[in-house]
Amino acid sequence: MKNFLTKQDLKKLLIDSNITKLTQDLEDIHPADILEVLRDRDFDKLKVMKKLPIWFIANVFEEMEDEEKEDFLNLFSEAEQYKIVNEMTSDEIADLLSNFRPEKIIKFLRNIEEGAAKAVKELLTYKDDTAGGLMASEFVAIKETMNVKETLKYLQIAVADVETAYYLYVLDKKNILRGIISLRELVISTFDTKIKDIMHEKVKSIPVEMDQEDVAIIFEKYGFQAMPVTNERDVMLGIITVDDIIEVVREEATEDILRLGGVNEGEIIDGAAFSSVKSRLPWLYVNLFTAILAGATVGLFSDTIDKVVILAAFNPIIAGMGGNAGTQSLTLIVRGIALGEFTKENAKKVFKKELLVGLINGLAVGIAIAAIGILWTGKPIFGVVVGVSMLANMCIATIVGYVVPVILKKLKVDPALASAVFVTTFTDVCGFFFFLGLATLLLKYLV
Amino acid sequence: MKNFLTKQDLKKLLIDSNITKLTQDLEDIHPADILEVLRDRDFDKLKVMKKLPIWFIANVFEEMEDEEKEDFLNLFSEAEQYKIVNEMTSDEIADLLSNFRPEKIIKFLRNIEEGAAKAVKELLTYKDDTAGGLMASEFVAIKETMNVKETLKYLQIAVADVETAYYLYVLDKKNILRGIISLRELVISTFDTKIKDIMHEKVKSIPVEMDQEDVAIIFEKYGFQAMPVTNERDVMLGIITVDDIIEVVREEATEDILRLGGVNEGEIIDGAAFSSVKSRLPWLYVNLFTAILAGATVGLFSDTIDKVVILAAFNPIIAGMGGNAGTQSLTLIVRGIALGEFTKENAKKVFKKELLVGLINGLAVGIAIAAIGILWTGKPIFGVVVGVSMLANMCIATIVGYVVPVILKKLKVDPALASAVFVTTFTDVCGFFFFLGLATLLLKYLV
Repeated sequence: MKNFLTKQDLKKLLIDSNITKLTQDLEDIHPADILEVLRDRDFDKLKVMKKLPIWFIANVFEEMEDEEKEDFLNLFSEAEQYKIVNEMTSDEIADLLSNFRPEKIIKFLRNIEEGAAKAVKELLTYKDDTAGGLMASEFVAIKETMNVKETLKYLQIAVADVETAYYLYVLDKKNILRGIISLRELVISTFDTKIKDIMHEKVKSIPVEMDQEDVAIIFEKYGFQAMPVTNERDVMLGIITVDDIIEVVREEATEDILRLGGVNEGEIIDGAAFSSVKSRLPWLYVNLFTAILAGATVGLFSDTIDKVVILAAFNPIIAGMGGNAGTQSLTLIVRGIALGEFTKENAKKVFKKELLVGLINGLAVGIAIAAIGILWTGKPIFGVVVGVSMLANMCIATIVGYVVPVILKKLKVDPALASAVFVTTFTDVCGFFFFLGLATLLLKYLV
Repeated sequence: MKNFLTKQDLKKLLIDSNITKLTQDLEDIHPADILEVLRDRDFDKLKVMKKLPIWFIANVFEEMEDEEKEDFLNLFSEAEQYKIVNEMTSDEIADLLSNFRPEKIIKFLRNIEEGAAKAVKELLTYKDDTAGGLMASEFVAIKETMNVKETLKYLQIAVADVETAYYLYVLDKKNILRGIISLRELVISTFDTKIKDIMHEKVKSIPVEMDQEDVAIIFEKYGFQAMPVTNERDVMLGIITVDDIIEVVREEATEDILRLGGVNEGEIIDGAAFSSVKSRLPWLYVNLFTAILAGATVGLFSDTIDKVVILAAFNPIIAGMGGNAGTQSLTLIVRGIALGEFTKENAKKVFKKELLVGLINGLAVGIAIAAIGILWTGKPIFGVVVGVSMLANMCIATIVGYVVPVILKKLKVDPALASAVFVTTFTDVCGFFFFLGLATLLLKYLV
């Protein structure tokens, strides 16, 4: 790794340098690195931030998590706050304001540049997790009647404010998207070429209300650097760039992983203990309720256990293995749904496969546990009871692991959210019921 | 969504069009869409692929998963295969060949362009999941003595073969990376400006052997479109572009999710049942072994259960809740490690927090289950036994959920790989042991 400053070196530089020297050095320092230093609790944030130019502070804000922006902003006077916000792009301002109280939003909109305020107001109407919530309103718009030389000249004046100028968008008078051309295509064309002659007309665009997960799937499929966002009349509203998509992909995956593990998706790894308790305890209570259900199932058969106490030792094995088999198919289906790999077209095929897998694995594990049961107790009939219950529970488990996320998806609930609880409760109750029920039926041969 | 062709329309177009018409239409059709159609089993792949120009087929190959490339390639004659491969970029060729047998690799390297063969040979020496495995060898290299006009002219000739020309890299005679300039910065500078005067000298570069997960973390932190890859002498070897990173992020997340769920990371959702069994059965056997360990712990106390049969009903509740609490902290730590959020610096803080969370949640659930135990049996002492065991097991579970992934990480084993098995085995055995042990000690008060 070359030219990556260590946190210690950067700290020293920020503390020791005067404003003039620091402003020179900033050209080679990435705001993301500065943010890491500013996050340190024992570091005098305010003193250092006062040394940084306003435009750079705005860049540091663009690197922050949404949760920490307001606290950082409050370090500044009101007048300074407006100056900082005025240096941000409209999508960053909208992200920042969306967490504020309504009165505070109105106050900010009144005190920033008119053009930006208008763009921000519109962005605030879109939901966070849609294309509208992801897009930036700044992009390079050109006309099809321009030639390459005129376009290059226009870029030299207009491009400074634009987040990315990798693609140029050709709009008509009504701002309807007519074509697209990449900066690279522009650069390799002769000066008098008309934009109309080199632009691509069939532009793939993203509808403003599309869910961000679907946007990410499109970006990954086509590998674009940026895509235009339009409304239902094809009016161009903004662009989404690929670096925003990385965050979406990571966020959605993290959400799934944490939810599957029974943790609230907002939990921060080194946050306060109290907020972790708040995130996890509700899930534990839901689990406690379902565990009691499973325990009560065992309670139903206490007479049988009283007579054949070895059943109590095999009980958790049968239930647990069902849980494992169910979790396996559940995990595959939940991830398949998130990646768009599980579709209407292959749903039936997947179901048949899961059924077959449950049967084969159930047989494989059932035979093993039957043998162990016979060795342990010396009674072949005990082996049969254990083996058959295991087979039945693992088949049911695989089906439940398929069905539960599919139903939740249909009910428009995130399949990752509650699947694991349902599946393990089901396999626990079924496992106990099959095993102890069968044992009760065959009790006279087991005693 | 505008200008996205449906699969049905595209199928019709591919079948109905003759070669001339198809070649015209291809400008607006994305190879990723064609690939989706070609993947259909009932579709006559070969007939349609014969209609497509070679350069387009090469683009379709770039969209394929590594596993399917060889099968598609085998549809063509040997001579056609070499032609197709000659249209690919060096990193794509290396990805393709890396799955072939050594003799086949040598044969291909002999039959493709010399320059490409040299680049591919070098790329094949890097591991798949490192920066070297991700990078493309094609990039735009310029000299610092050139001016803007010369650079633009050079681009018009040189750029056609290059995957992305968003950044231009300034190299010296020994190919050492001296500076970087974006296409956008080039375009907005006057023609006679020297590259030396506008290039950025402190270029952040990625070492060729860096793990792809770490590369993804750097891309996400800094939001670059592309980054240069260098060796230990700062010689520039290639570039990594952000669209490759999306795939890495998704792959790594999918791997973690599947591994945590006890599924092999290569399992395909609508693949063959047999390969699913192969992916899942080994895990189930590992789990069976650990479940038997837990069952044997229960077996140790069969005398106690024989006397107080209600213990058998509470047994799975205590073990299960420990498993849930352990999985919660495990999930958070595994994800924190993957995202780089769990560091040496905050490890101690996180540990203290987990300890406190385990204690609070253990108390909250312990008191609830104690009350239920008393209501169920009418014996306050039973409530104490259940409550105390629950508290102890949930504290242990939280600690184990923290410790296991941290140890695996130190042993350089993927923390997601075996954590869940260890944690639930541990909480099962501990839960049974605490609960039944305590009950045995206090047996005379419980009967």
